[in-house]
Amino acid sequence: MKVTPEVIARLSGGIVDGPAAREITGFAKIEEAGEGDISFIANPKYAHFASSSKASALLVSSDFEAPEGTTATLIRVENPYSALARLMAAFEQPDTKTGVEQPSFISESASLGSGAYVGAFAYIGENAKIGENVKIYPHAYVGDGVEIGDNCKIYPHATIYAGCRIGNNCIIHAGAVIGADGFGFAPDGDTYRKIPQLGIVVLEDDVEVGANTTIDRATMGETRVAAGTKLDNLIQVAHNVRIGRNNVIAAQTGIAGSTVIGDSNRIGGQTGFAGHIKFGSRCEVGAQTGVNRGLGDGKRIIGYPAMDASLFARIFVLLKKLPSLFKEVDDLRKKINN
Amino acid sequence: MKVTPEVIARLSGGIVDGPAAREITGFAKIEEAGEGDISFIANPKYAHFASSSKASALLVSSDFEAPEGTTATLIRVENPYSALARLMAAFEQPDTKTGVEQPSFISESASLGSGAYVGAFAYIGENAKIGENVKIYPHAYVGDGVEIGDNCKIYPHATIYAGCRIGNNCIIHAGAVIGADGFGFAPDGDTYRKIPQLGIVVLEDDVEVGANTTIDRATMGETRVAAGTKLDNLIQVAHNVRIGRNNVIAAQTGIAGSTVIGDSNRIGGQTGFAGHIKFGSRCEVGAQTGVNRGLGDGKRIIGYPAMDASLFARIFVLLKKLPSLFKEVDDLRKKINN
Amino acid sequence: MKVTPEVIARLSGGIVDGPAAREITGFAKIEEAGEGDISFIANPKYAHFASSSKASALLVSSDFEAPEGTTATLIRVENPYSALARLMAAFEQPDTKTGVEQPSFISESASLGSGAYVGAFAYIGENAKIGENVKIYPHAYVGDGVEIGDNCKIYPHATIYAGCRIGNNCIIHAGAVIGADGFGFAPDGDTYRKIPQLGIVVLEDDVEVGANTTIDRATMGETRVAAGTKLDNLIQVAHNVRIGRNNVIAAQTGIAGSTVIGDSNRIGGQTGFAGHIKFGSRCEVGAQTGVNRGLGDGKRIIGYPAMDASLFARIFVLLKKLPSLFKEVDDLRKKINN
Repeated sequence: MKVTPEVIARLSGGIVDGPAAREITGFAKIEEAGEGDISFIANPKYAHFASSSKASALLVSSDFEAPEGTTATLIRVENPYSALARLMAAFEQPDTKTGVEQPSFISESASLGSGAYVGAFAYIGENAKIGENVKIYPHAYVGDGVEIGDNCKIYPHATIYAGCRIGNNCIIHAGAVIGADGFGFAPDGDTYRKIPQLGIVVLEDDVEVGANTTIDRATMGETRVAAGTKLDNLIQVAHNVRIGRNNVIAAQTGIAGSTVIGDSNRIGGQTGFAGHIKFGSRCEVGAQTGVNRGLGDGKRIIGYPAMDASLFARIFVLLKKLPSLFKEVDDLRKKINN
Repeated sequence: MKVTPEVIARLSGGIVDGPAAREITGFAKIEEAGEGDISFIANPKYAHFASSSKASALLVSSDFEAPEGTTATLIRVENPYSALARLMAAFEQPDTKTGVEQPSFISESASLGSGAYVGAFAYIGENAKIGENVKIYPHAYVGDGVEIGDNCKIYPHATIYAGCRIGNNCIIHAGAVIGADGFGFAPDGDTYRKIPQLGIVVLEDDVEVGANTTIDRATMGETRVAAGTKLDNLIQVAHNVRIGRNNVIAAQTGIAGSTVIGDSNRIGGQTGFAGHIKFGSRCEVGAQTGVNRGLGDGKRIIGYPAMDASLFARIFVLLKKLPSLFKEVDDLRKKINN
Repeated sequence: MKVTPEVIARLSGGIVDGPAAREITGFAKIEEAGEGDISFIANPKYAHFASSSKASALLVSSDFEAPEGTTATLIRVENPYSALARLMAAFEQPDTKTGVEQPSFISESASLGSGAYVGAFAYIGENAKIGENVKIYPHAYVGDGVEIGDNCKIYPHATIYAGCRIGNNCIIHAGAVIGADGFGFAPDGDTYRKIPQLGIVVLEDDVEVGANTTIDRATMGETRVAAGTKLDNLIQVAHNVRIGRNNVIAAQTGIAGSTVIGDSNRIGGQTGFAGHIKFGSRCEVGAQTGVNRGLGDGKRIIGYPAMDASLFARIFVLLKKLPSLFKEVDDLRKKINN
């Protein structure tokens, strides 16, 4: 990478504000940027860094007011974070791995589209169907009858159990497990009888699954993650869950069996969803929330159990005043009883 | 699968109530079932689905009252969920994998019972002893000296560290780690000195371990999970923990070191147990509970820290009324002081 | 192992108190110890076990008062837990694995120091640089350009993505994932645009990473874990996090993006840290805490959201009295209004 601010502006749909005769050679966070780096300010609370940053260029919002001392050339864009994404993608080193490394295991009945990479020790089971330009990294396991669309990346040690289906442009990170048995046991005297888990997992297009995340196969039918949804690391998605489109779900969240989640929610880390509930769309869920019942659209919740986010904030302030409240009630009682 | 309601009734120990001349060809959830499917109603709150369901047959409890419009042939059984488990098992496609795929790594000193499947890239260490009819999927790692009983399934990328022992009929899902070092460090000035973890993990018969669950080896002696206990995904079991028989523990729960858990508990997801506590039997623990002390038998607890479940429910209702309580006390004080 | 109490005392820097003519042949927990075992009492609440223990020797603190009936030879040391660590290390069976098992995959451009063990199905990518005496267990994945220092252990199914750097004396347990993509997506209309994650992960010397723990690569620059920090199992460390030296972090904790944590903290399990906060040094954080803002040094916190640990204890007592408080306020109002 070796470009001028003008090239940056063109690629990010922005306007150059400042010296144009500079050379941009890399990306860096604003606190760490040096000569030649381009950085960004997406969050106003980082704006003050602009004056001390040594970055040569800064992606900023169109109405950004540069603090005194700012020396970087500003590239003004509508949405700095989105522009950054586009820009970084333009300069990202492409993943050029192709071909089949040896030893790997590809069943004779499996089919593999053109442009594939199959790393050493990757395993592709019987009748698996894999699309074009798919990268299957070393140690990935693709079970019998699995279908994978085009342009997917399956990282090392990802496991896709038999029969599951993955859409196009999906990314499955290392150690993720797609399609292990749902957790279903029927009491039988003192012991439990395993309920066979005959269903599958379906990931639609553009789904990303984080490292060591687990998505269980359905008891019957499907566990489904709809198009565009992004799952962070170490998330648990239980059997027969349905997650809608374009959700962003942070790490270590768990979703219990048969729960249905709508579209475009933003869900904080370590949140838990009870089973068999219907959750709306366009909600914001704070971290570590315990979602124990269904919810409508467009809500902001947090807490254990979940409540309205602004109520939670008020209650938390009051909680810390409980010692003085108890004392006050005690005083009142004494006054009244005297 | 292609059977009549009578066959279903016979296999599930039930009675046919309705048209008997139908063909059942598959299982489906009640909302999704179509012509030819058998479904079930185990939870009364799903009973209303019976009238709109297109299922050809329904497993229901013996006293089920079919809502008007129900067209499915009813199969009345004592316990629909347990009957379903038996029925699905009867029609489950057997796992017919056998033989040793190449390349795999089986130490010369390891022994392997008859009927085994060893997938490609599976690794079996020195002196490992593996029973009859064990399926060791691709990429599974069985360390030196590990013992595995009969009829077990070890799924891809499961890791069993050296010296651990697995009983009969156990299922270990993908990515589970049995026997990594316990988390033991002694302070030594500013740094920590690692305490060697010399013990092992023992899983008794009929234990199921979910995907990416971790069970650490003991510092000395054993970390033990007793017969019939089922662990969901992404659970942490620390060193020297002892879990009794027939527990059902939901995903993402963590149990800290040396804690002892009794039998037949039902433990909700994302629950945490403190270390060095003794927990009873036949308890119900709500999701996300923080169990910070020992407990007797037959309790129902939830909360952070844990408390009696009915007290928790009352307190949560009152919590949401805290703003009005504070206001009321304020009003009272003003009245009294005037 | 077959030694006298004198040898134990010499190795642990202690003094023999009791019969010296005994043979010590193994380690055991005090409740489980038998003839020939040495055990320890580090926690005073286990002191009463001394009288009933069948251990032949006991590591105890220098001022330990043996209860009546104690038959073990006491080895008095300054810090029993630390002495135990030293002693166990002295008798630990060394990991003697060396050499390269086949089939494994070592890129031609990779370099490997002397004394290495490379297990079957291990993968070492292009230009990877691996130090002396490193054990790379079967199924471990070392990506292109990864650097690993001396004396490290990389257990089965650990994944180290391309470009990450590991210091000396590090231990990475099974299934850990170092360097998967950070969770970064910019909204783009209804969908999300992936932000390329161009940075790396750096683990300094003496870091231990637990089984199935995930540490994401930085968006730009580094995610860094400083020397001597120990991470338990199933922990999530997000992109651009910086963790200082000698922290001990218990299982299932999650740290959101760009958060900075100081040195020598002790952090309980299932704790969550919000993103973009600055956390101090030498703090104690209780289990399941929700750390939603920065913190100074030397604090003790717990709760959701986090608060001072002693305030939390008081509030929890009062919470359980809320029903009676509400009733009391009700009574007071009636009295006043009459």
